[in-house]
Amino acid sequence: MRQPVELKKAYRLLNHGPTVLVSSAHAGQQNVMAAAWNMARDFEPAKVCVVIDKTTHTRALVEASGEFALNIPDRSLADSTVAVGDCSGRDTNKFEKFGLATFASEKIAAPLLGGCVGWLECKVIPEPHNQQRYDLFIGEVVAAWADSADFSEGHWHFPPGRARSIHYIAGGTFFETGDEFTVGK
Amino acid sequence: MRQPVELKKAYRLLNHGPTVLVSSAHAGQQNVMAAAWNMARDFEPAKVCVVIDKTTHTRALVEASGEFALNIPDRSLADSTVAVGDCSGRDTNKFEKFGLATFASEKIAAPLLGGCVGWLECKVIPEPHNQQRYDLFIGEVVAAWADSADFSEGHWHFPPGRARSIHYIAGGTFFETGDEFTVGK
Repeated sequence: MRQPVELKKAYRLLNHGPTVLVSSAHAGQQNVMAAAWNMARDFEPAKVCVVIDKTTHTRALVEASGEFALNIPDRSLADSTVAVGDCSGRDTNKFEKFGLATFASEKIAAPLLGGCVGWLECKVIPEPHNQQRYDLFIGEVVAAWADSADFSEGHWHFPPGRARSIHYIAGGTFFETGDEFTVGK
Repeated sequence: MRQPVELKKAYRLLNHGPTVLVSSAHAGQQNVMAAAWNMARDFEPAKVCVVIDKTTHTRALVEASGEFALNIPDRSLADSTVAVGDCSGRDTNKFEKFGLATFASEKIAAPLLGGCVGWLECKVIPEPHNQQRYDLFIGEVVAAWADSADFSEGHWHFPPGRARSIHYIAGGTFFETGDEFTVGK
């Protein structure tokens, strides 16, 4: 069940470096792309960084709306994660083409993707130099959510047999998030 | 055995979001800190982003030298990864205290850490606004290396029984890099 994540613990959704799906919306258009190049940036107010290339349709929607969402797919969405990177939202409705269910964000217009394990709704902190020179976007997290089966009370606890978050490398190859372990206790 | 990694494929060392150890050196001082907040930023020239807090001794060494290295620890270094985050290089020689072996970089002064699975030698691309406001450093990768048992010819191939890269969450808890899988082939 989807539950809110305390904003100051939202970084934990990204701390292990999962590949995310960036969703966006502006003026009646919606899109989604994959982004391995993302990271948490701050605890409170919670911030994130994500690279959104100039050539993408997502870039236009994010710059126009000043908003994006980071959706954390699990392994069941790995095919879709690769597929949405292989076409452009300029000429394809990726949600229809790949049968991706969405639901409404709470604080922004971008849709959230069904079947993910976590979601971060973000507002762009305008940094034109970073955006132009490095395709680098910094967002403040204004709402965060997780599937309580996978993350609750600030902790991941992927139960056995449940698909986990994924980490893209290249050429369709991923690593799934692996064994949890704790040191120094 | 340590082997060079082609710079345009160096992003693959970080693409799955491992926690790294940031090593630095300046004027006879050396230090190391842990950083979950890192990401690849570009293919060619290869770039990376990493967050280095103003309060850290590493920050002073990186700003003074204009260089840093990202070392990718495996699970055997998880204790050390937590430990180096729990003290400051201002008053502790972390290498001696935690018995961390180092060897020389090729292109920069910062030492590289023994026992890691990958290494990226980086020169800071000066961006004073990012550094001051977001503690965000962008580096160009000037040399990259990997243990060929874990990564070669541009691909990770953690063999069975060998410790893998690690992904920090909080409170001493990590995930190890998990199962590899490929989609869309």
